[in-house]
Amino acid sequence: MTYCLGMMLRDGLVMLADTRTNAGIDNLASYRKLRLLGRDGISMIAVASAGSLSTTQIAMERSIEGMSIPPLYQLEKLATVDRIHRAAYLLGQAIKKTEQDWKQVTQGDVALDASLLVGGSIGRERTRLFMIYGEGNFIECCPDTPYLQIGERKFGQPILDQALTYDTDLYEALKLGLLSFNLTIRSNAAVDLPIDVVVVRADETYPELSCRIEADDKYYCEIDRRWSQALKAAVATIPSATYHEPASPEALAARRRA
Amino acid sequence: MTYCLGMMLRDGLVMLADTRTNAGIDNLASYRKLRLLGRDGISMIAVASAGSLSTTQIAMERSIEGMSIPPLYQLEKLATVDRIHRAAYLLGQAIKKTEQDWKQVTQGDVALDASLLVGGSIGRERTRLFMIYGEGNFIECCPDTPYLQIGERKFGQPILDQALTYDTDLYEALKLGLLSFNLTIRSNAAVDLPIDVVVVRADETYPELSCRIEADDKYYCEIDRRWSQALKAAVATIPSATYHEPASPEALAARRRA
Repeated sequence: MTYCLGMMLRDGLVMLADTRTNAGIDNLASYRKLRLLGRDGISMIAVASAGSLSTTQIAMERSIEGMSIPPLYQLEKLATVDRIHRAAYLLGQAIKKTEQDWKQVTQGDVALDASLLVGGSIGRERTRLFMIYGEGNFIECCPDTPYLQIGERKFGQPILDQALTYDTDLYEALKLGLLSFNLTIRSNAAVDLPIDVVVVRADETYPELSCRIEADDKYYCEIDRRWSQALKAAVATIPSATYHEPASPEALAARRRA
Repeated sequence: MTYCLGMMLRDGLVMLADTRTNAGIDNLASYRKLRLLGRDGISMIAVASAGSLSTTQIAMERSIEGMSIPPLYQLEKLATVDRIHRAAYLLGQAIKKTEQDWKQVTQGDVALDASLLVGGSIGRERTRLFMIYGEGNFIECCPDTPYLQIGERKFGQPILDQALTYDTDLYEALKLGLLSFNLTIRSNAAVDLPIDVVVVRADETYPELSCRIEADDKYYCEIDRRWSQALKAAVATIPSATYHEPASPEALAARRRA
């Protein structure tokens, strides 16, 4: 499994992806699932992938080498598309084609589903973020719900629903993203560090931050340590459940005799 | 969907279940999914169910009316089994038989999977908690991980992993359980109030608390209101992510020209 998170905020784009893959619980490995393409100052395309690694790797390769896609059926590739929306469309077509090819061969016996997050901008357009489904269609992230997730999303969703808004500062958002990953990693062995991170200021075409957060990363360890304490303190601020009216000893004895 | 939670602690048993069922997002309804059986002072069997409502209702009926089950194939029913472990076994056989019957008819086209949480004690035995799978087999809750969940479990799991222990007080556990439900309800429309609750002191055979928490419940509304604040305060105690070293204006200009 995998967990990837993209946040499209007023100030820009934050994307995070873990690196854990597994083919069965006894076959764990580490693979990069967040890739950056483009040229500083001209284009910036960040792609995070979840699901079948063979599907996403082949689809990426197809999109880089070039594919003939509707409506003109001319060869298009990630290096030459002129808008991030077109990059999302190209990647969607590549995912769809790859899944279709392999489903014919495997007749549905193998899980080949995959999904992508695609963020960035090309030229002088605004920065955008999309989620691409295995069928090739996609949706765009919007200010009402300023994040998109793929993979093992549920453990880390509530903290985003409660604390993230479109106006959240980029590095506060990165903190919330790392908290969301920390909650997921603590409850699910299929997601793990290192975590790849990219931060892009709105409408810029280079990453302001692009790094890998390893298991011994000082800030991540601080989050891991402090969050347990902070959560326990938060729980302690809420009074204990008050539905209980203790029964008298006589009533309890009577019930036991009943 | 559904969310049911059982906590087996040193001091006793706490079980919660929501009441939302859906057959498609346009077909929502409210059904009791936590049922109490037994006689005060003699036996106490609490059953929470998730999955196909037809499967769990028919299986409950079978267990109450009586089934011939291995190894003796004599009629056994929930009212006459002499141990809670046997009640779990009977319910498991009832779930398995019900799923098998209907799968023959539907040939796998209809989702009939179901699972149960079964807690309580019969006679003077200790209180125990089990989770029953659709195949009829089951596991027992143990102090290392003092809770079991069925249904929509992931949203509300991290807070249990971080704050619940075997030594948690029963009404603190009920508070954590309601928080776990609140997190789930906020992020998932398929789980909703009212929430049915039962609290049983260890080794007792009557519920100390058995109630339904409605949407306007004062304590639940307080949790709902306070938790958002408490969580934001907890997030604020952690410093913002510190990976960013702001680039100089000259460096940025150079990157834009590149």
